Amino acid sequence: MADRVYLDWNATTPLRPEAKAAMVAAWDQSGNPSSVHSEGRKARRLVEDARGTIAQAVGGRPQDVVFLSGGTEANALALTPRLRRGAAAPVVRLLVSAIEHASVLAGGRFAAGAIEQIRVTSTGVIDLGHLRALLADGAPALVSVMLANNETGAIQPVAEVADIVHAAGGLLHVDAIQAFGKIPFDLGSTGADMLTLSAHKIGGPKGVGALVVAEGVEGLESLLRGGGQELGRRAGTENVTGITAFGAAAAAAMAALGDDAGRVRVLRDRLEQGLRETPGTIVFSDHIERLPNTILFTAAGMKAETAVIGFDLAGVAVSSGSACSSGKVQPSHVLAAMGYRSDVAQGAVRLSLGWSTSETDVELALKAWRKLADTLVRGERRNTA
Amino acid sequence: MADRVYLDWNATTPLRPEAKAAMVAAWDQSGNPSSVHSEGRKARRLVEDARGTIAQAVGGRPQDVVFLSGGTEANALALTPRLRRGAAAPVVRLLVSAIEHASVLAGGRFAAGAIEQIRVTSTGVIDLGHLRALLADGAPALVSVMLANNETGAIQPVAEVADIVHAAGGLLHVDAIQAFGKIPFDLGSTGADMLTLSAHKIGGPKGVGALVVAEGVEGLESLLRGGGQELGRRAGTENVTGITAFGAAAAAAMAALGDDAGRVRVLRDRLEQGLRETPGTIVFSDHIERLPNTILFTAAGMKAETAVIGFDLAGVAVSSGSACSSGKVQPSHVLAAMGYRSDVAQGAVRLSLGWSTSETDVELALKAWRKLADTLVRGERRNTA
Repeated sequence: MADRVYLDWNATTPLRPEAKAAMVAAWDQSGNPSSVHSEGRKARRLVEDARGTIAQAVGGRPQDVVFLSGGTEANALALTPRLRRGAAAPVVRLLVSAIEHASVLAGGRFAAGAIEQIRVTSTGVIDLGHLRALLADGAPALVSVMLANNETGAIQPVAEVADIVHAAGGLLHVDAIQAFGKIPFDLGSTGADMLTLSAHKIGGPKGVGALVVAEGVEGLESLLRGGGQELGRRAGTENVTGITAFGAAAAAAMAALGDDAGRVRVLRDRLEQGLRETPGTIVFSDHIERLPNTILFTAAGMKAETAVIGFDLAGVAVSSGSACSSGKVQPSHVLAAMGYRSDVAQGAVRLSLGWSTSETDVELALKAWRKLADTLVRGERRNTA
Repeated sequence: MADRVYLDWNATTPLRPEAKAAMVAAWDQSGNPSSVHSEGRKARRLVEDARGTIAQAVGGRPQDVVFLSGGTEANALALTPRLRRGAAAPVVRLLVSAIEHASVLAGGRFAAGAIEQIRVTSTGVIDLGHLRALLADGAPALVSVMLANNETGAIQPVAEVADIVHAAGGLLHVDAIQAFGKIPFDLGSTGADMLTLSAHKIGGPKGVGALVVAEGVEGLESLLRGGGQELGRRAGTENVTGITAFGAAAAAAMAALGDDAGRVRVLRDRLEQGLRETPGTIVFSDHIERLPNTILFTAAGMKAETAVIGFDLAGVAVSSGSACSSGKVQPSHVLAAMGYRSDVAQGAVRLSLGWSTSETDVELALKAWRKLADTLVRGERRNTA
């Protein structure tokens, strides 16, 4: 893999060295965190240390961090009917933006009839007017809006969303998976009542995530029952190795956040500039604030499936939208929600960078793209000849 | 920890060297298994290789193995209302033995009113007469009976249970977590329609488990939605490192099964003999077939909480029943179901052995017990003086 260029960091990231070291260290503390003996208490300490790190990273309290098996489970737990704050009326319906991850669109434990979608603008941000209209007309709602979109990288105005939602007596869940480790934020700056985080997008292992709940939110009902773990919010023996590595990855990601984001943005912009040299290139959501590492683009006549395979054969790992449908290349629901025709949506390719992306990686990717673009253009000519 | 003796293998086991090596190997394949590029396909191969190993270990088909975040989630997935086999009527109620793990007693997605408990005998095995009576009187049932009890080690007559359940038009789920890697079994020998397995009881990492479904069982409904992973039965990016290590641990456990079980049984019997030298010692379920590694015992006037702490201070990690209640020492629901008074149940201590348990470990544990027993007896004398 020495010559491979990995530009699919929004799908998953390599493990950070700190996460690997944490896993190795956790191997020797092999007790069950629920056991009262010394081995158990040592395993418990690893979990609680990681909990403290995650809490600190997003300005929450350790006791409000629930460790889960990943972002999908965290989103499923968050979308609980009848959540409430203090004496306020519990939420009885769910509003999700049309560009949410599939695990949010699935609606958690809300009945299908209790779920509505909030429109997004053509640039890929939530339509605040539509959100206001939906909230004005109905019972208290749980609203779920991601902090940054996984496909376009578009950063959503969650603080404004929070004000609107709270003024209407609702609660806000923010899926912050793609934003975590890429841009600074916390519970306070987002105004979120719940935040979803995932380890494997920040250099931790796959299979670990967290839901961080703001103080005062009540009514979270465990998806998995039959054990008192996670203060009764998630039964089952804790993934000690994974949680420890999540904590280590988060600490490393937070420490490097400013430097990584700045360096990655320069490389991303260089890559984007190179892609634009091909006539007819579109970079989606390019006039709004985006994650510093993400480019979703297409070119005239390009088919994402062919392009992804072409990049792969040229040694560059890229993606067509998200990676969550078991190897199937599907048209992007995100671009469809932004109003793009399906032929455009089917041509969208995502390049996403990370902390170990180098200048050489960018050069190799552009070299691959120039060859590939040429083929695609010739293909177009042939087809129309 | 050089001088520590770990005798709490039923709570969790140390990682096998093979599992550690597998995790390190998986680190370099850091793609998302749902990605179509080379990195993704390599991660996919790791997951599918592990799936093949788990399937082979229990005589199932790879496509019928669902990887989950642990035994608790696997049990929750298994307990799905309306499961069926072919054209048979779907199950609409749940029968669980009274000695099941808390995650089974919680009943999955069955309504509380649709769940009944099957009694056990005073020796700790399921009361087949009561099972027959419950099945005779009602709609098709899903029955959940563990292969071996986690506290007593009592092996349940699951093949007979399967015959009874199937004759009544029901389906059988077998929680085989404690039996896996300790005694030989497979889907055929148990007659199970579904088997639950967990990695961290056989030398794999915490946070990984599997549900193995027998051919022809239909209607399993995903707990986590929003992604096509695990053939639509469990959404969310796969825990590649954990799953790979689970496969490696299972392969190692299966290869060593005969040798380990024989050696451990000899050590267990020696330990049990030593414990019995204290007058008034009771070993639970000692007249029936038990796991080769488990002893649940008490002595006159012993309090489990004190005994566990005493053992711990003497360098020996043991447990009072299961470790699933976040550090709380609770009276055993298993012993209560067997008809023991709560003062006896509150005195039960579990010693469980594993593949790295040595003769020295057994000697040290007995040495600790003799001192501890002496204190307990003196305590008894003082209290009654």
